[in-house]
Amino acid sequence: MTMESAFAGIDLGGTKMLGVIVDQNGRVLVSEEQPTLAAEGPDAVITRMASLVRRLIEESGRLVSGVGVATAGTLDPKDGTVQFAGNLGWTQVPLGRTLERDLGLRVTVENDANAAAYGEWKAGAGRGTRDCVFVTVSTGIGGGIVSDGKLIRGRSSSAGELGHITIDWNGPLCPCGNVGCLELYASGTAIGKAAAAAAAAGEAEGLALLQLAGGQADRITSREVAQAAASGDPLSQRILREAGRALGIGLVSLVHVANPELIILGGGASRIGEPLLGPMEETFRKYAIASLGEGVRIVPPQLGAQAGAIGAALISEQHH
Amino acid sequence: MTMESAFAGIDLGGTKMLGVIVDQNGRVLVSEEQPTLAAEGPDAVITRMASLVRRLIEESGRLVSGVGVATAGTLDPKDGTVQFAGNLGWTQVPLGRTLERDLGLRVTVENDANAAAYGEWKAGAGRGTRDCVFVTVSTGIGGGIVSDGKLIRGRSSSAGELGHITIDWNGPLCPCGNVGCLELYASGTAIGKAAAAAAAAGEAEGLALLQLAGGQADRITSREVAQAAASGDPLSQRILREAGRALGIGLVSLVHVANPELIILGGGASRIGEPLLGPMEETFRKYAIASLGEGVRIVPPQLGAQAGAIGAALISEQHH
Repeated sequence: MTMESAFAGIDLGGTKMLGVIVDQNGRVLVSEEQPTLAAEGPDAVITRMASLVRRLIEESGRLVSGVGVATAGTLDPKDGTVQFAGNLGWTQVPLGRTLERDLGLRVTVENDANAAAYGEWKAGAGRGTRDCVFVTVSTGIGGGIVSDGKLIRGRSSSAGELGHITIDWNGPLCPCGNVGCLELYASGTAIGKAAAAAAAAGEAEGLALLQLAGGQADRITSREVAQAAASGDPLSQRILREAGRALGIGLVSLVHVANPELIILGGGASRIGEPLLGPMEETFRKYAIASLGEGVRIVPPQLGAQAGAIGAALISEQHH
Repeated sequence: MTMESAFAGIDLGGTKMLGVIVDQNGRVLVSEEQPTLAAEGPDAVITRMASLVRRLIEESGRLVSGVGVATAGTLDPKDGTVQFAGNLGWTQVPLGRTLERDLGLRVTVENDANAAAYGEWKAGAGRGTRDCVFVTVSTGIGGGIVSDGKLIRGRSSSAGELGHITIDWNGPLCPCGNVGCLELYASGTAIGKAAAAAAAAGEAEGLALLQLAGGQADRITSREVAQAAASGDPLSQRILREAGRALGIGLVSLVHVANPELIILGGGASRIGEPLLGPMEETFRKYAIASLGEGVRIVPPQLGAQAGAIGAALISEQHH
């Protein structure tokens, strides 16, 4: 083993877990993906997480000084308890303490979107900045904020629920319980729903959008909207323009709150590209307060699906 | 002089400057208020600031190890330059460096709302917490966020523009350049305008609201609305209920972003009390995501008009 220390990270998802060993710069030395098999229950899952970490450490040949776990759900970051995680079916699972006992290493448990934000900031698109907002737009909208080089976690590691800021206080109820959330207007789900509704109302007759969905309005998702927009479909382009405008307004609020120098915008829906991101950036540039918005760069992420695991590993370094 | 170190703080406003010397707990040892006399120009103002600090240090009999200045405007926090401050008529004034040279002490320059947030967190209503949002509702809405004991400043010390998060993305243009800002619905100015408009439309005939304004709709301000509401005026109560609801929605967004344990709500308009704050709290409790909103306390500030000066002094300690 070399003496240069390294860190282990696991991104624990509902269907699979990804483990990595990274160096102090977040460079991935080894990685492995496994099914989560949540149905086997917390004990079995945690035992397999420990085995995965041990195997990766051995493979890396490094001295590992901390372990970070990224997971969805509500957490108690102080003792690493998962209070509730719907995707795992977990309630009050002492994940951190159990792993610590098993591995004999310090374990840090972090919200998965926040871990990804930290990873992208420290080892990805945010390298070299001090103030950075990470926004991920996929089926939902999430993210995290790094301020002066520190992740904003909040009292229960739940800070950065960026999809659930209100952009219409008279808008519809969101499944989260709030009203008019950004996620209702700009997520992949929202884009698909808006298109399906327009098609059901007859607005897509003869358009590429409807053809791509086999003529069935209720089969339209953001995928068909993106594809149709790329081929010039005007309805799809209008829907993406509107979603992009909502996203831009959301970014303005975030920049007014956090005053970052960089916004990292990722997630599946962000890959729709120009038809969504063009109106987003235009709206952002138009409405942000000049002294806060000028010079703010909006860039794609660089770490892909490994961001959460890398970020969790690097957070364990910070807490070490 | 005793050896226990102390810190100097000045809150530099457009019409007056308030200087304090505080101990490490933010307790005010001595204080003095002076007119700013901004018309005399930056050099004269800064010279008087230095004299004020020297006089306060002598009066306090303490060894002062740092000076903090709270001021409005856009700042470069790295070198303490005031890039633009409309209330002072200043452009590119090297406030921090000039004061440092003059006093021979390290000087930190901070946004005034952020300084007040830090002061209230460290020495006022936020004492003992780690994650705290400070919101001030007066003619405008401002504030600051403390996360894990650290002020969120952002790249240009402009973080915490809490009045300029959008709550209606299809709403009217705000003087800041953004649309549908919280401030347009919940500030003292907004409350006065809504009431004046309702009265001009004839809705205040025979009501206390109009009588308090001498029968002239355009003389109605938030003060008359507050007074009329307290005496049972239904129009005034409805306007405050609506402003309170907007404020509650804004707090939900802030809590979803920052996940604090405490909200300190201050400013002149907040003293309207129950007719505004009741609907605000009710809305907040109803719409915040349960895991983020539960247990969040909303409390009034404790430091009054000294919060900015005290906060600036204490920030200079942090940077020392």
